[in-house]
Formats: sequence, C-alpha cells, structure tokens
Amino acid sequence: MDFWRATTVEEQIDAARGRQEADLVLKGGHVFNVFLKIWEDADVAISGSRIVGIGTYKGRQEIDVTGLYLTPGLMDAHVHFESSMLSPREMAKVLLLNGVTGAITDPHEITNVLGEKGFRFMLDETANIPFSSYLMIPSCVPATDMDTSGARITSEEMLRMQKLGPRVLGLAEMMNFPGILNRQTQEMDKIKLFFNKRIDGHAPELSDRELNAYVAAGITTEHECTNVAEAREKIARGMYVFMREGSAARNLVDLLPLVKKPGNRRLGLCTDDRHADDLIEQGSINYLLEIGVAQGYEPEDLIPLATLNIAECYGLKNVGALAPGYVADIVAFENLEAFQPVHVFKGGAQVVRNRKLLWKSAPVLSLPGQSMNMPAVTAERFKIPAVPGKSMRVIAIQHSQLLTREVHMQPLVRNGEAVSDTARDILKLAVLERHHNTGHIGLGFVFGFGLKRGAIASTVGHDSHNLTVMGTNDEDMAVAANRLREIGGGLIVVSEGQVRATVPLAIAGLMSDRDAMTVNSQLKQSGFWLHELGVPEDFSAFMTLAFLSLPVIPELRLTDRGLVNVVQFEHVDLWYE
Amino acid sequence: MDFWRATTVEEQIDAARGRQEADLVLKGGHVFNVFLKIWEDADVAISGSRIVGIGTYKGRQEIDVTGLYLTPGLMDAHVHFESSMLSPREMAKVLLLNGVTGAITDPHEITNVLGEKGFRFMLDETANIPFSSYLMIPSCVPATDMDTSGARITSEEMLRMQKLGPRVLGLAEMMNFPGILNRQTQEMDKIKLFFNKRIDGHAPELSDRELNAYVAAGITTEHECTNVAEAREKIARGMYVFMREGSAARNLVDLLPLVKKPGNRRLGLCTDDRHADDLIEQGSINYLLEIGVAQGYEPEDLIPLATLNIAECYGLKNVGALAPGYVADIVAFENLEAFQPVHVFKGGAQVVRNRKLLWKSAPVLSLPGQSMNMPAVTAERFKIPAVPGKSMRVIAIQHSQLLTREVHMQPLVRNGEAVSDTARDILKLAVLERHHNTGHIGLGFVFGFGLKRGAIASTVGHDSHNLTVMGTNDEDMAVAANRLREIGGGLIVVSEGQVRATVPLAIAGLMSDRDAMTVNSQLKQSGFWLHELGVPEDFSAFMTLAFLSLPVIPELRLTDRGLVNVVQFEHVDLWYE
Repeated sequence: MDFWRATTVEEQIDAARGRQEADLVLKGGHVFNVFLKIWEDADVAISGSRIVGIGTYKGRQEIDVTGLYLTPGLMDAHVHFESSMLSPREMAKVLLLNGVTGAITDPHEITNVLGEKGFRFMLDETANIPFSSYLMIPSCVPATDMDTSGARITSEEMLRMQKLGPRVLGLAEMMNFPGILNRQTQEMDKIKLFFNKRIDGHAPELSDRELNAYVAAGITTEHECTNVAEAREKIARGMYVFMREGSAARNLVDLLPLVKKPGNRRLGLCTDDRHADDLIEQGSINYLLEIGVAQGYEPEDLIPLATLNIAECYGLKNVGALAPGYVADIVAFENLEAFQPVHVFKGGAQVVRNRKLLWKSAPVLSLPGQSMNMPAVTAERFKIPAVPGKSMRVIAIQHSQLLTREVHMQPLVRNGEAVSDTARDILKLAVLERHHNTGHIGLGFVFGFGLKRGAIASTVGHDSHNLTVMGTNDEDMAVAANRLREIGGGLIVVSEGQVRATVPLAIAGLMSDRDAMTVNSQLKQSGFWLHELGVPEDFSAFMTLAFLSLPVIPELRLTDRGLVNVVQFEHVDLWYE
Repeated sequence: MDFWRATTVEEQIDAARGRQEADLVLKGGHVFNVFLKIWEDADVAISGSRIVGIGTYKGRQEIDVTGLYLTPGLMDAHVHFESSMLSPREMAKVLLLNGVTGAITDPHEITNVLGEKGFRFMLDETANIPFSSYLMIPSCVPATDMDTSGARITSEEMLRMQKLGPRVLGLAEMMNFPGILNRQTQEMDKIKLFFNKRIDGHAPELSDRELNAYVAAGITTEHECTNVAEAREKIARGMYVFMREGSAARNLVDLLPLVKKPGNRRLGLCTDDRHADDLIEQGSINYLLEIGVAQGYEPEDLIPLATLNIAECYGLKNVGALAPGYVADIVAFENLEAFQPVHVFKGGAQVVRNRKLLWKSAPVLSLPGQSMNMPAVTAERFKIPAVPGKSMRVIAIQHSQLLTREVHMQPLVRNGEAVSDTARDILKLAVLERHHNTGHIGLGFVFGFGLKRGAIASTVGHDSHNLTVMGTNDEDMAVAANRLREIGGGLIVVSEGQVRATVPLAIAGLMSDRDAMTVNSQLKQSGFWLHELGVPEDFSAFMTLAFLSLPVIPELRLTDRGLVNVVQFEHVDLWYE
C-alpha cells in the first residue's frame, strides 16, 4: 500500500540516521506509541511513503504539529461501504476527513445484486487512491435459499476473485452458520479455499460446542457480539471480536468493559453498516473513540483497537503503528475527546490539511449498469386476506439492535383483509423481487416503526436487496415501489399519493453516484419527512427497514418468498396456529 | 505442522459439536486460555492433529488429567540448537521432556562451518519428527570479515534456501548492524530478499536514530536487550523483544518488569545458547517460566510469552493457544512453580507420558562429514614477545553477560615473553583457523576465568568456530589443540600434559552424535575438571570461551586474525600505545 514517491531502503536508512534530510518531518507533536500505549514528544521523519524515525529530525519539508496528538491512521475492521450509500471513492473521502485511512470492506451488497461485476467495481474504484481499501470476498451470495438474490457466487468464482490482487484478503463474514455446523458441501468448499487466509465470522449468540465447531472450521472474527459474556467466550475460543457501532446496530457501550481486560489485544472497532449522514455528522471509527472516551475509557487503551490490533488480525504488515518502516498513515488530532482530525497523511502524502480534504476526485469513474428488473405493481398486489380465528406472526423490531422477535398479534380486519393498524403500530410490509422479473412478492406485518401516514420503500434490503416497502395503506406502497423502479433504485417516502423525498441510488440501487454532501441533504429531507409522518427522530428507519429481509439474523424476517423464522431456519406462514 | 492422522474439516466440525466422538479427550484439567489469561476447568477434545473443542466431550480415547494444568506447547523464540552440543533430534527430545514443542532455530553455527550443507542437515534431521523446528536462514556467514569461517553464504544461496519449505521462515539475526547502518551492498541484498518475511535482529545497545535505521531496514526482533530501558525503546520502535536466559547470557531477571507493562504482547522468551547439562538439569523455556514465577510474576502473564506471542511474531497460524482449530500441542504440568511436564502432546499424539519420552529415535540419521582442516601445532606457536613499556589490551569477561570490556594491563614477562599470570587471573588465549588449513593463529589475553592450572580448548567458537584454546602454559595449550584436531572437534580439558576430559563433537565440531545422557555425563566430567583446575563452579567456562572470538558483540574479541575492537569494528594490536 505505498503511495506517491517510492524510496529505496538505502534512502530510508540514511534518512533514519539523519545522514540525509527526510522528505517530510512532522515537528513537535505528541506521538502515540501503540506498542507501549504512551505519548512521546518527538518528531516523525518520513521518507517517501514510509516513516523512518521517531526522534529529532530535519526535513526538506517540515510541518509544525506542536501540541497536536499524532496517531496511526485509524482503520475500520469491518464495513460494508454500500451501507453509507456513497460510492466507494466518496466514502473514502468522508473516511479520510474522519482520520480513517484504511478499512476491511465486504462488498457483500453489490455482489449480491451484480455478482463478480459488482465486486470488481468496488476493487477498481478504490485502486490507486489515498485510502487503503482491503476487500473480503462475500461468502454468502446468495445469503440463503430463502430469498432471491441478483447473483450467485460459486467457489470457482471465488478462486478467481482471490487472485485479483493483494488487497483481496480472504473470505467475508460467513453468515450461514447453520450451513457450517451442518457441514453443507457448498460451505465446506468455500472455507477450504481460504484455509490459510482470514475467514470472517458472523454468528450472533453462537456458543459452547457449536461455537467450537464454527471456529474449528477456520472462522476467526466476529462483529455480532452484543454483550461481554458472549464476546469473552468468542475471544477465549480464538476469535478476534470487533466492537460494532453502526447506524442501526450499536453494541459499543455494552462491550467497552472488555477494553481494560486481558484479551483486549484481540479486540477491534468496526462500523459494519453506517449511513452517510451519521458518517458526516458524527464520524466513523473516530466517533467510536469519542464514545469510548466519553464512557470513561483511556484513549491509550482505545486507539490500539482501531490500529495495531486490526493490522495484526489481517496480517497487514507495516500498518497500524507510528514506527520505523511503517507506512506513513498518520492523523493529527487537536485533543483526545473530540477526535476530529486537523491533518491526515496517507502514505506520506498530506490528504487533509486544517480539516480540508486535499484529494480531489469524481465520485465515480464508471457506473456498473442498471439493476432494476421488475414489473410495475398495483395496490392490489399488497392485499392480505384475513384468516378468521388465527393470529399473525409479526416482526417486532428492537431499537439499536438488528435482532427481531416473532410476536403473535390479532390482525385489524377491514373488508376481510388484514390491514395496517397505526393505532397499535402494526404496519404492512412487502418485499418485491427486483433482479429477475419474477414478480415474487412476500407479504407480512411489522411492529415498532411508528409511521402514522404514507409509505416508505427501499431497494436496500439485506442481503438480496429486493425492494422492501412498508406502509399505512396499499396505494402509497404502490406509488413508492413504482417510483423506485423508474429511477433505478433508492430510498423513498410517500404520503397521500405524493412522493415527498427520494435518495436515488444509481449504483446497483445501493449507492449514489453523487457527492457526499448531496446525498446527505437528500437523506436529511427523507428524515424530515419520516418524522413528519410519525417516525421517532432518533430512529434509523431506513437502516432498520433494510434488515427486515435478512434471513440470517434471528428471529423473524420477510423475503420475496415470504416469512422466515431464522431460529428454525425455515419459511413460516403469516398465520399462526 | 500436522502430525499423525490427518482429519477433514468436516470431521473436526462433527467432533466439535459432539456429533461424533473425538479421537482423544483430555478430561478434567485446568485449561489455560492464553487470550484471556485465565484457567478454564474443561475437557480438551482433539480430532486428528487438531484441537476441536474446549468444553464437555467424550472421546474414543480419554486421558484423565484431573488437577493438571494444561498449557499450549511452549516455544523458544530464538535458539541455536548447536549450542546444546546435541544433535537436532536429540535436542528435540530434551525439549519435549521440558514441554517445549517448537522453536525458531537459527542454524548459524553449523552453516558457518559447513555452509548450505550444514543448513540442510538441520532441516533434514528435523523433518517429520514430533517437534516443530522452524529455521531462519543465517544472515552472517561469515559473521564479519574479521576472521575466517568455514563457509560463505551469498544472497543467491539464500534465495535457494528460502525455497526449502514452509519451515524456513525468514532471515536469522542480522548481527552485522554496522553493515546495515552503513548500507553495505551485501547486507542490503540480503534484507531485500526477505522484505516480506521476518528478519531477526541482534543489535545490543543500539538506540535512537541508529535504532530507527536498523528497524526501518526491516529488522524487527531483538534478543540482546540487557535492561528495561533498552527493551522498552526497542518495543517502542516496533520490535519484538525476546527475553533471553541462556547458559552464559542471562537477561531474564533484569527484563521481567516488562511482563506487567503495556507492550508485553511484543515480548517473548528465548534461550539463544544453552548447554545440554543446563537443559537436562534446569530445563529450557519451562525453566524461564520457573524463574519468572520465583521472581513473583504470575504464570498467566508469563505463559503467553512462550506461546501466543511467539506464534504471532512469526506468523505461525494455529499454534500457541488451546482453542478450536489449533494444532494440539499441549503440555500438562502438575503445578505452576516447577514447570516439569507430566504429559506432552504434539499434534494430538502423546509424546511424553508420566515424564517419560515415548518417541524413540537414533540421535542422528546421517552425519554431514568431517570439519577439522588444520595443521598440528607446537607450543612455540603460542609465544608472545613482550614489548617493553607498553601495556596489553586484555579481554575482560563479565559473568552472565556476553559483553566484554577492553582493559589495559601490564604483562607478566618471563624471558622476554608475555605469559599467563594466574595470580592476576590473566590467561593466554589463542584462536587457530580450522577450516582451510591456513595455519592462521590469533593471540591475546583474557581476564576473569579463574583457571589456575592447565588449558582448555574448544572447536565451538562463535561464529566461525575456529579452535579456541586458553591456558596457563603453552604446552598444555598445544596438547589440547592437537587432541581436538585428532578427534574431529569438541571440548577438552588438559593439565600437566594429560587429557582430563573431552566432549567429542563429531557433527561439525559443534554437536555430539551421541545421546543426551552421554553428552551430559561428558560435560559433567569436564565441569569437574574445570573446577578442579580453579574455575568457579557456577561459571559456564566453555560457553564463555566460545564467545571470545565473536567480533560482533562489544567490546574486545580475538579471532584467528588477531584482536578486534568491536566498537571501532577494526583489528587492534595486542599492545596499547
């Protein structure tokens, strides 16, 4: 991951010894030593893309960082860029402004929509940029056989994708843990391909002998822990545990006590899924550091979780520390409460100066093509005939958690149909297949969104990214779905038959081809309208909606082929006996 | 590093889940969790060569380890097997009895004598044995241009040696640190070959910008630290620091305070050079644990230094922990004060049962050939004419340190010759070239051995392993040298013209082809005679003697081509102006 001028080891030795001036010296900062967890008052000498010395140095270029706190460039241990709804280059810009210089990314979403073409798009768009984007190969395309994805990645394709370059590190989160435990042939084929590489995990609540089996299969990271006991057991069995703070799933505060305990070298920080507005307004991994410090933890104990630990986990050499031979990825902070970078250096080149991004680039170099292949719908398609005497299986969401629960409720019946009941906050939900023109539709109900009027819809719907629409009435639901079909995907808010707000997502119906500020203002407009229509202000409605179709996280989900009980791992009927 | 029965990942998953019986279950022990630094009361289930689960299990074979403490197999982070004077297979046996199941070895000594043939001998003799011997490629053959070695390894040869298999990990200790700092072409060529592999360091007292330069060159381990401040600086600059306790160089107690401090994940334990008698009577890495505990440190803080940390440093996957997927290298201790293993398992196979070794093997499969190529000598060759009015540069040894000092002393003169002066403990020292029949001899004096009568000699003489002889009189020195020449090398004690004890070392004049117990009794006899002739009982005279010719550790050394001041890195005259 070298950027800009290449140097020889001979030059680096001479610069380190002070026999020749370094290319760049950062003078007078407090330099974080991630190995000893101390701050050293010293200069940082850089030759080409590498740090060559910590000490007293002169440079051809010198930058005064007196009083600033220098840390290694922050890293995100696990992130789906698609969840920001920003293009990968635009995402990199936002991350750099937050002091994040590298990330382990899983392009799971776009690959589910567009297959290998989507993976290559993410790889190509992040080539030769001042940001280190490492890619894991999505393991679950499709995620399950419970729904219809846009693509299918076989182990043969994975073998080819493995060879796409050194930024491809291993196999991404193996969400199909039942498939591993039951040693299904296709899952075994995949893990055998990555036997000597890192295989990321995703197995919420897995424990005891089943956890042993999952880890014995070679799956050695986890970012789904929700409590200290779960995380400690997973670390004990040899896993790296990434403490996640996304836009919807927020586990950091619950897990922070681990930071002071033995085992903390096996901890990392990750965002997993984070919206553009949260990234821009709160931050990325730097925001996680802020939370940690606000909760009373020492920055010296937190920073290794965002730097050295992640580099060690993924075998990234010469990354994650400020020391001789390390890539000069450096962030200068003004204080250690609000981690807002003043300067950022990537591979020895300054990319942020006085909080301004110096790197200029178009949001996207080339688009990967159209992704909406579905028929238009009418309101009729959303009708659900009531079954007298039976209660319904309803998806109950929980704020700040991806987990849902299956609850059983009596329907509100009008004209023999089960309909949305805003009084009890039970709303109709539909998932429409959008990749292969099958016309598949799954119907159900969800509890907990608070929407009082209108409908919302999204082409972001984990993991197959069919079109999910939820509403108080069938007419608005049809308007929302049809409009998204027309504009190539996105997010939408509709009421009284009118489109109130849209966030067009031209890249696979997942990411915008516009700059981050534009996307942010579009998201703000959506947020305004969501609140206007009854959704609580602090609730990430679109993020939550996007996970209602993911049949690998307990307990009840809806796909284009109907309801799924994830614990039983099977389709279930809306109507409960 | 799999031994014995191979299993499939499918079998491992089934065994982990308890769906089929494990091959072997260790029942009822206290299982050390190296990640959390806790003991778990649990069974360890093993399938083939791998641990598959920690929990409650049934096995086809079950071994009751109730009350025993189970740890990962110990590892030695840096060891020259040759220093034990045992053949590599015999060394492996002794290490297994001490609970050491793997080691990072540097076959530096035999390679200096026999070249690539010597390296291959060490590799071949440790193939397919129940011990993990990893090899680093000696970086300094010859160590310097200050003496005459048996062989010369070029970077071209290194390139070939790199490809000898997965047990070859990288470049061994780069002792020629001046060569690195002055970016000598041949040293640069070597480090470039290993740019993405581990390069071990050896740079005592190197600090500040010179240390930066050394680390920037890619050299990232160190085992020569003698105090906490030095070790902390080296860790701060990105090095792994191995705390050494050899037979002569003993730094552990001075460095132990590091164990409780941040940075301890970058610490390891090593023996570097340790004699057979010490290994048999005190132990190896297990003895270092005993010292640590005796000094008041917690075993839970010490064991990671001998297991996980070393595995991480060298990128050894699935080694160094008791967790699913890890190689079943397991040691059972009775208590945590005296680390004497009761049972040892290597790759799932029991190799030590009730303190008895189960693995049987000849000490050597095939010898690498003769290594003594030198003329016989007469006592005349050792004469040193005195230079009136001048004092001598004398090598002053320091007990428990490899460092020597240059001291200036007046000679004892008899008949116009400078001679040994037992009253002041100044003894004559000679180094005779033994590889190429050059007849080279270096002469000098050493202070501090305590020998009162006779002479001792050795063909172990770092790093070129010429014949070093030290004595109270020239006649005994000649007897000692000539006898070693006749028997193919070894250690010898002579007095009054009589050979009192020998340790024949048929393998390159460095290692015995006999079993460990025989070597131990030969060493005991030598020790008895050394003490008889005046050497203090607690002093490793032969080990110290073997380092007097090493011109890379400060301050004054003697080679076959004369005295070397290591600080100035140049030959100096015996006589001081």
